[in-house]
Amino acid sequence: MEWIITEKNQLASQDVDRQGIKMLIGNGYFGYRGTLEEFTRKEKTASIVAGLYDQVGDQWREPVNFPNGGFVQVFVDGEALHALHSRVREHEQSVDMFRAVHLRRTVFETAKGNLITISARRFASLARLHLLCEEFTVTANVPCEAEIITGIDGDVWDINGPHLTQLQVDHEEGILTVSALTHESARPLAVAECVVPHSADTLLREEILPQAATGSIYRRLRVTLSPQGFTFYKYAALHSDQGSPEPLADSQQTCREAMRVGFPALLQEHEALWQKRWQTCDIQIEGDATAQEALRFSMYQLLAIVPAHTEAASIPARGISGQMYKGAIFWDTEIFMLPFFTHAFPEMARNLLLYRYHTLEGARRKASELGYRGAFYAWESQDSGDDACTYFNVTDVFTNRPMRTYFRDKQVHISADIPYAFWQYYTATGDESIWRDGGAEVVFECARFFLSYVYYNPDKRRYEILDVTGPDEYHERVHNNAFTNRLIAHTFDIC
Amino acid sequence: MEWIITEKNQLASQDVDRQGIKMLIGNGYFGYRGTLEEFTRKEKTASIVAGLYDQVGDQWREPVNFPNGGFVQVFVDGEALHALHSRVREHEQSVDMFRAVHLRRTVFETAKGNLITISARRFASLARLHLLCEEFTVTANVPCEAEIITGIDGDVWDINGPHLTQLQVDHEEGILTVSALTHESARPLAVAECVVPHSADTLLREEILPQAATGSIYRRLRVTLSPQGFTFYKYAALHSDQGSPEPLADSQQTCREAMRVGFPALLQEHEALWQKRWQTCDIQIEGDATAQEALRFSMYQLLAIVPAHTEAASIPARGISGQMYKGAIFWDTEIFMLPFFTHAFPEMARNLLLYRYHTLEGARRKASELGYRGAFYAWESQDSGDDACTYFNVTDVFTNRPMRTYFRDKQVHISADIPYAFWQYYTATGDESIWRDGGAEVVFECARFFLSYVYYNPDKRRYEILDVTGPDEYHERVHNNAFTNRLIAHTFDIC
Repeated sequence: MEWIITEKNQLASQDVDRQGIKMLIGNGYFGYRGTLEEFTRKEKTASIVAGLYDQVGDQWREPVNFPNGGFVQVFVDGEALHALHSRVREHEQSVDMFRAVHLRRTVFETAKGNLITISARRFASLARLHLLCEEFTVTANVPCEAEIITGIDGDVWDINGPHLTQLQVDHEEGILTVSALTHESARPLAVAECVVPHSADTLLREEILPQAATGSIYRRLRVTLSPQGFTFYKYAALHSDQGSPEPLADSQQTCREAMRVGFPALLQEHEALWQKRWQTCDIQIEGDATAQEALRFSMYQLLAIVPAHTEAASIPARGISGQMYKGAIFWDTEIFMLPFFTHAFPEMARNLLLYRYHTLEGARRKASELGYRGAFYAWESQDSGDDACTYFNVTDVFTNRPMRTYFRDKQVHISADIPYAFWQYYTATGDESIWRDGGAEVVFECARFFLSYVYYNPDKRRYEILDVTGPDEYHERVHNNAFTNRLIAHTFDIC
Repeated sequence: MEWIITEKNQLASQDVDRQGIKMLIGNGYFGYRGTLEEFTRKEKTASIVAGLYDQVGDQWREPVNFPNGGFVQVFVDGEALHALHSRVREHEQSVDMFRAVHLRRTVFETAKGNLITISARRFASLARLHLLCEEFTVTANVPCEAEIITGIDGDVWDINGPHLTQLQVDHEEGILTVSALTHESARPLAVAECVVPHSADTLLREEILPQAATGSIYRRLRVTLSPQGFTFYKYAALHSDQGSPEPLADSQQTCREAMRVGFPALLQEHEALWQKRWQTCDIQIEGDATAQEALRFSMYQLLAIVPAHTEAASIPARGISGQMYKGAIFWDTEIFMLPFFTHAFPEMARNLLLYRYHTLEGARRKASELGYRGAFYAWESQDSGDDACTYFNVTDVFTNRPMRTYFRDKQVHISADIPYAFWQYYTATGDESIWRDGGAEVVFECARFFLSYVYYNPDKRRYEILDVTGPDEYHERVHNNAFTNRLIAHTFDIC
């Protein structure tokens, strides 16, 4: 039982945010929030690709939320079946952490008193990083006609959007597509979607519904429901210019391959990879089911959001569950998350560390901007390593005025936390290549930063680290913070 | 005309605060606010003795407001004549800056339609520092009976009081007295008052009204008013243990001497001393009466509040006009006020400077408390030199919460401003004795403070002054503030 986390509840809107994060699925390339298939921007659906950011005007720069290829809405007698707004007899939502599969089952009662059951499974394929797979089943206690609207919902939730421009909807050989450019850098991205009935002999009565205004395109399926149920598979492919020369064509290709392989085999290859992960890292706790579940949940989340495929991204504070915290990578990754990877998945730890090497230029710019040498790593790091945090990063809750914060310019310990993490990795793995491949440059640049930051106190005959914010982040501008001083000394020791 | 500042107005309550300060009289030992004779705590009457402070509980420590020996209230037909509340036909209030005399003239119309004119003059004797002298005349357009209540009003205005305990009221040979102890240190103080009719042959019909509960004692005079007018003189003496072994007896003695000398001679000796001051410092501006008045007003105020009689006090931010700003001496005195004295009245400048020598121990305590050597002078200095400013000195106007301010601990420039002022005095006067008499110790102790405060920046190969609030007082915790750095270098230069 400790592999499956379940919420059985009459869903209320305040549950939706929490379950969106708790029930997340992800393969490190993209994350898909734990929302239900009929949900839209109102319920904060999101499919977030790691490392792709966009800024609109002078709003906060944040991850791009892709058009939602997982959308399915069932209508019976013209009534939309929605877990929040319809009459719900039973509802259950869960994540099978062992398989990294999201499940939901909801029994609706229609106005006529018919019972309609929706069951769905989905996963973010670990074998095919661009692919979201869904299995969707609708059952009725008495035969009835239903309409299913499914496809790609381009009207996405954004905190500081909209991020997509020049949205194009299209369809070709049964594959729906939405393609777009990001706002800031006109980076191309595309989502493709296709649907396959479970029974090969079922002929789908399908009508395509393009909705250019919202960048959406749907298909309407007319089906007759029965106690035997109607099942279909749905594949959505998310591509951007990260590794995809032609995102649109690549997304279509991903869909075609998914159809060719088929859901059972796709699930099997996905499960096999996750099983391998768990064989490496699972820890069994006897006699404390809660601790067992909590431990597995922590590892599940870390593994769902770690960008194991690239050195160009790391783990943001809120993972890849949305745009909160600007999708930024904080020092928390090195201090709190990295030890798990260093000890269980050193190759992933290596990627996470080298993200800091690839963003060294941003850290150099930040140091230089503040009049220092070397590298001062960002508090909120995105793709370039420049600090996404502003000097007035929050609004005073009492006065509603922008408030000067020191997260950006005074947390110098960040440039010591990163060398510390490199050193931890090195001592745990013995991997000397990490230094050659960028680690040495990172550590030396951090040390150079501190050489230009320290002061000598001639009266006390010692060096001091002044005017910093320590890791508690709320005692601002203190002198000689213990954590900071110790970690900086450690940075010099590594050198 | 440029010697007299006048306000002719139908007095409104919002004028009272402003005129209380603008029309102040003072002789450096005590200040008496520019309120009217019938005013009470409601209108913020105050007689403040320089350098006498008191603290109640953990409220702000502030100057003691003495019982008001200047109080006079006229009643006609049972109606109290009050410039704010009665029917006023004409009203004029002024200060003759040349003579340092406060004047008022008010024509009241009673309910019966009689016109009663009150004219009064008063001064804080520069020849007898404990003495307040008043001349008070009441005239009626038609003969009528009046009652005059005059004496000592012990029910004083306090911001963080009450400061007086064990109030004792008494009278002996026509001299009324109120004596008391301060709250914090039980320092004795006393106010004595006596009244003398203008015509030696007038027999006062007088009744004594002690009011122990408020620490007040009055006399009721019954007089017949006429167009010829009724005039009396009133003397009030303020003594504390500063230079008075027995404040109560000394205050009685001061009154007796005043009666013996008489008002005309008292005024003459007072005027003569002020005339001498003006001969030294007056500057005449031709063709700009406003500038002339403003210049004389500034000098008048400085001369009214300078404690020329002692090295134990200096000039508070609001002079001796009340308890605002805790009656504290700020660096403003050395930087903005002292140059006038240095150039026009060097002996007064010398006193003001030596106040810093006499409060050096407080500055040493402050430096030591913050972990430094030498002397870090107070932002808000009172009698001991300890800083009256707290770390949470103000309340946020939006949230009503105490607000961390850096006035106390980050304005290190204060310990450079004071050496600067000593140096200015020395170069202007050539008075080398100032160093021997304390100046050298002050400057060296300030330099020692900075030696323990500076940091060496090994990267930039220079010393820096970090984490200060400069003289604008609102850019908090900055590094290498230009004013601060320059003045500190100057402190070292003086050494």
